[in-house]
Amino acid sequence: VKRHSSGPGQRMDIRGIYPPIATPFTQKELVDYHKLEENLNKYSKIPFRGFVVQGSNGEYAYLTSEERVEVVRRVRQAVPKDKLVIAGSGCESSMATVQMSDQMAQAGADAVLVVTPCFYRGRMDSRALIHHYTQVADACPVPVILYNVPGNTGLDLPVEAAVTLSQHPNIVGLKDSGGDITRIALIIHKTQNQDFQVLAGSAGFLLAAYSVGAVGGICALANILGQQVCQLEQLCVSGQWEKAKALQCRLIEPNAAVTRKFGIAALKQTMDWFGYHGGNCRSPLCPLTESETKQLRSDFTSNGWL
Amino acid sequence: VKRHSSGPGQRMDIRGIYPPIATPFTQKELVDYHKLEENLNKYSKIPFRGFVVQGSNGEYAYLTSEERVEVVRRVRQAVPKDKLVIAGSGCESSMATVQMSDQMAQAGADAVLVVTPCFYRGRMDSRALIHHYTQVADACPVPVILYNVPGNTGLDLPVEAAVTLSQHPNIVGLKDSGGDITRIALIIHKTQNQDFQVLAGSAGFLLAAYSVGAVGGICALANILGQQVCQLEQLCVSGQWEKAKALQCRLIEPNAAVTRKFGIAALKQTMDWFGYHGGNCRSPLCPLTESETKQLRSDFTSNGWL
Amino acid sequence: VKRHSSGPGQRMDIRGIYPPIATPFTQKELVDYHKLEENLNKYSKIPFRGFVVQGSNGEYAYLTSEERVEVVRRVRQAVPKDKLVIAGSGCESSMATVQMSDQMAQAGADAVLVVTPCFYRGRMDSRALIHHYTQVADACPVPVILYNVPGNTGLDLPVEAAVTLSQHPNIVGLKDSGGDITRIALIIHKTQNQDFQVLAGSAGFLLAAYSVGAVGGICALANILGQQVCQLEQLCVSGQWEKAKALQCRLIEPNAAVTRKFGIAALKQTMDWFGYHGGNCRSPLCPLTESETKQLRSDFTSNGWL
Amino acid sequence: VKRHSSGPGQRMDIRGIYPPIATPFTQKELVDYHKLEENLNKYSKIPFRGFVVQGSNGEYAYLTSEERVEVVRRVRQAVPKDKLVIAGSGCESSMATVQMSDQMAQAGADAVLVVTPCFYRGRMDSRALIHHYTQVADACPVPVILYNVPGNTGLDLPVEAAVTLSQHPNIVGLKDSGGDITRIALIIHKTQNQDFQVLAGSAGFLLAAYSVGAVGGICALANILGQQVCQLEQLCVSGQWEKAKALQCRLIEPNAAVTRKFGIAALKQTMDWFGYHGGNCRSPLCPLTESETKQLRSDFTSNGWL
Repeated sequence: VKRHSSGPGQRMDIRGIYPPIATPFTQKELVDYHKLEENLNKYSKIPFRGFVVQGSNGEYAYLTSEERVEVVRRVRQAVPKDKLVIAGSGCESSMATVQMSDQMAQAGADAVLVVTPCFYRGRMDSRALIHHYTQVADACPVPVILYNVPGNTGLDLPVEAAVTLSQHPNIVGLKDSGGDITRIALIIHKTQNQDFQVLAGSAGFLLAAYSVGAVGGICALANILGQQVCQLEQLCVSGQWEKAKALQCRLIEPNAAVTRKFGIAALKQTMDWFGYHGGNCRSPLCPLTESETKQLRSDFTSNGWL
Repeated sequence: VKRHSSGPGQRMDIRGIYPPIATPFTQKELVDYHKLEENLNKYSKIPFRGFVVQGSNGEYAYLTSEERVEVVRRVRQAVPKDKLVIAGSGCESSMATVQMSDQMAQAGADAVLVVTPCFYRGRMDSRALIHHYTQVADACPVPVILYNVPGNTGLDLPVEAAVTLSQHPNIVGLKDSGGDITRIALIIHKTQNQDFQVLAGSAGFLLAAYSVGAVGGICALANILGQQVCQLEQLCVSGQWEKAKALQCRLIEPNAAVTRKFGIAALKQTMDWFGYHGGNCRSPLCPLTESETKQLRSDFTSNGWL
Repeated sequence: VKRHSSGPGQRMDIRGIYPPIATPFTQKELVDYHKLEENLNKYSKIPFRGFVVQGSNGEYAYLTSEERVEVVRRVRQAVPKDKLVIAGSGCESSMATVQMSDQMAQAGADAVLVVTPCFYRGRMDSRALIHHYTQVADACPVPVILYNVPGNTGLDLPVEAAVTLSQHPNIVGLKDSGGDITRIALIIHKTQNQDFQVLAGSAGFLLAAYSVGAVGGICALANILGQQVCQLEQLCVSGQWEKAKALQCRLIEPNAAVTRKFGIAALKQTMDWFGYHGGNCRSPLCPLTESETKQLRSDFTSNGWL
Repeated sequence: VKRHSSGPGQRMDIRGIYPPIATPFTQKELVDYHKLEENLNKYSKIPFRGFVVQGSNGEYAYLTSEERVEVVRRVRQAVPKDKLVIAGSGCESSMATVQMSDQMAQAGADAVLVVTPCFYRGRMDSRALIHHYTQVADACPVPVILYNVPGNTGLDLPVEAAVTLSQHPNIVGLKDSGGDITRIALIIHKTQNQDFQVLAGSAGFLLAAYSVGAVGGICALANILGQQVCQLEQLCVSGQWEKAKALQCRLIEPNAAVTRKFGIAALKQTMDWFGYHGGNCRSPLCPLTESETKQLRSDFTSNGWL
């Protein structure tokens, strides 16, 4: 597997499926590195392209700077060399993002995933975002992947900004979790000469994203149904669209349940059911209520996964 | 072509591409039936499945009740028998919708398209919408198609409401203009035993909709690039996904330009450019500014359509 | 009481409190004019400035054109000459609004209240809205009041549009139901030389609106607690702010309950409790559930009104 | 001036006006403590109740943890003992917020201002927020003030959560920057037995907030027109409502210009015009464009402030 660009104009190939891994905590809400490694060991049987450390599902917003870097280091050590480690290095300021990206690269990340800053969202227009990402990509020792997650940020990376940024030699792609398939198709179309790679940010629209030219997915659901998400990838890549459709449809409700509907607490609860270490989130994220847990289970059983 | 259900449990087949036709007006803002018929004549060479009269692009919200029915009558008279005429009969009250649906059926509509009522959107929950559509479908002499267009209504028909309504023998399908492909896939999945047919409400996500099981599209862009939208349908239906993707991508910007971005005035302006009668909208919809017209043209030229 | 302008530059004075009256229906959902008149008789003891017929609470969106005019006629006949009758004449098209305004004026309306058209909200910018209201005000035989109700329309009349329109000799004021007090204050400030009168569109922020210069209110809650809303007016007008504050605060939850929270069905349910004719709404508006009814009652009892 | 509670059930009195001070940076984007102190010196002539360090206008989201504490320390050293120093200590996790609050208290903060965590806003319901604030308030050595700023967080602290939290002995009040005056009045009403103090989070609705019972304001505009904002406070407190109204109205556009409309870059640009140190923001916040600067100036000149 080629991981880094080997010549001018050639970019790191990031095709494939990645789980944005969860961060297990101890009773005292400290990072439980042991459980983290056990999860990674269990994932080793699944044909993932690599792992995303500190996507939104990793509760990165709740980790200290030191923890963020340390988790990346531990993951890099725990997984085989041929697996890509993509690290979420986004911070609100450009300065902090530059520094975090560098530290994560030093800790072994093969690429960094940089979420749109969003606290001052009223001013995060194309100009500001292009400025931000350019500073980060200029300074970063490893390739940069843009990260658009409007459900959390309340902000959609403008198409024109994505297109402009696709021309930067150190920006290799985009993770889009918004799920607006028209927008995803348009970005792919307008960057088609740039070798710019788009990854679906959710298993809910993975097939549709492949149908318009995406090359992979970073899918929370892959933490639980990793084998199945990889199978969906294979069906799409090999053009078996009818089978893909049948599988895709059975993944939508489970996926929604562990993301938009009930959030990370549901992701972790389900990981426990499937033999991984999930456990509690850091506060203020609360455990599910009993009624939510029941609905969560039903979203898996009614689709035949439990 | 079979248009009506011929036995118990069998529903009208609505597969295919439909332009939601525009309504031409005279200088005095009266409906120009002559120009309307000329447009329909020009459309006769295109392999449309039929015509949607008074989708949102038909400015139905600006027509009187009498005009709404009369336009349906004229269209039915002008187009060949084997073309379906689907008439937008939605009103805010159930009572008015029942009546309008009946009048449009008498005027020759093969089916009616019923938009979600929305003025009191805070109370338009599943209960209210199921109640509304059930009354309409019970009374309507022709099949009913649900119509979800959140961009105009500020309301998303809940998935559970669509699933419940799919079981009504006189509700045959859904036009979804929201473009949330995960939601569209889920509705198709959850109604798969109901012979419930989903139509994409826009050319922007037509390929993606086909990829998850939609059976056609009601696409504003088909008023202008009808041949091309039908070609995209054929590529999807025959499984030529790579060619479909290339064509789909070239349609996104033109489609956005005549819908979300610049609205019906842009649709009509472009119709003029392509040899149809577009003309002005009814007030308060204004003609495009010069700068908007320039951008509109550019969205067509940069994709090779002008 | 002076109702109409008596000289150049002098506008109709619309100060005071108005209930936006509800429309009672029979079991068959026909307008019950008898009950309507009985309600008006009961209101005659309350020092209202007048009545608003077909604000959003009047279910105007569910009435036919004929019913809309007829309700105005009946109200005008039923109430004393010295009470203003303000009729909601807004339609989506300018043409229909011009016509409806004229018919309502003929039926006896002293002024018309014109909601922002909203179905094509993406294009309802200042240009379109100024165009719309200017046409209506030019043609209308009675004064025009602008009506901003973003909760229903999904649209906020831009401040600059309100300021421009305030200069039209036949536009006398604005009903603002949005409740953004900063915006209300700014509009009052920027129209201070125009004799432009702003009415609060809800009892929830009536005191605050007076504090920044509003001159009255059109308040759903006045259908039920009319005496109290008029008392609040008096306290504000006479500068008894502490007493006003105490009364205002007790009105917020009841007001929210019969508007935003539970809608018109709650307004009508509460009217029944208070000795007026409320009854059912037209479909698709549903009666309250049992649990909603309980909460509604509690919002009145906990504030000492039931 | 009494600052701390002196007995059981008595809370810190936080009445008055506070500027949420800006953070000046050097050319290299480091905190410029010297300029910060010069600003504070200039503010010493204005009858502020105190200073808010690291409200949203302080770019706290762009500061490191160390910088956040250090800025508090410097401000405490620079301002007279009788001025309250309120420090924004909110972080996304409860754990980090507890720690930051403690450090800021050690650095001399008289109270802390804790913004609603928001990155996982879909799960930040009353349960989560009550849990969060309770942990923070239990542990915090100084009083806690809730901070609701939906414009940045995309989240509104639920009224019921505010009411529950008002009963905590170490939670003394709320800064509400949302500007929904009905909501503000309701919170004041429902906490009236708790000695719970509400501060307006903006000069745009300061008068209206006083009219319903607020006791002060934390107003970005006070960084520039501090004397005037304090004067408005005096007019409200002394019941001179007509004069208050006239002054209030002239502050709305300048206030909007340096907050919602153009953001912190505008605040700092205007500070430069008024003799304070403003300067650039940290990236990715960009300087104003020329056209924005022109509009900004006009929003001050047209109201007579420049």
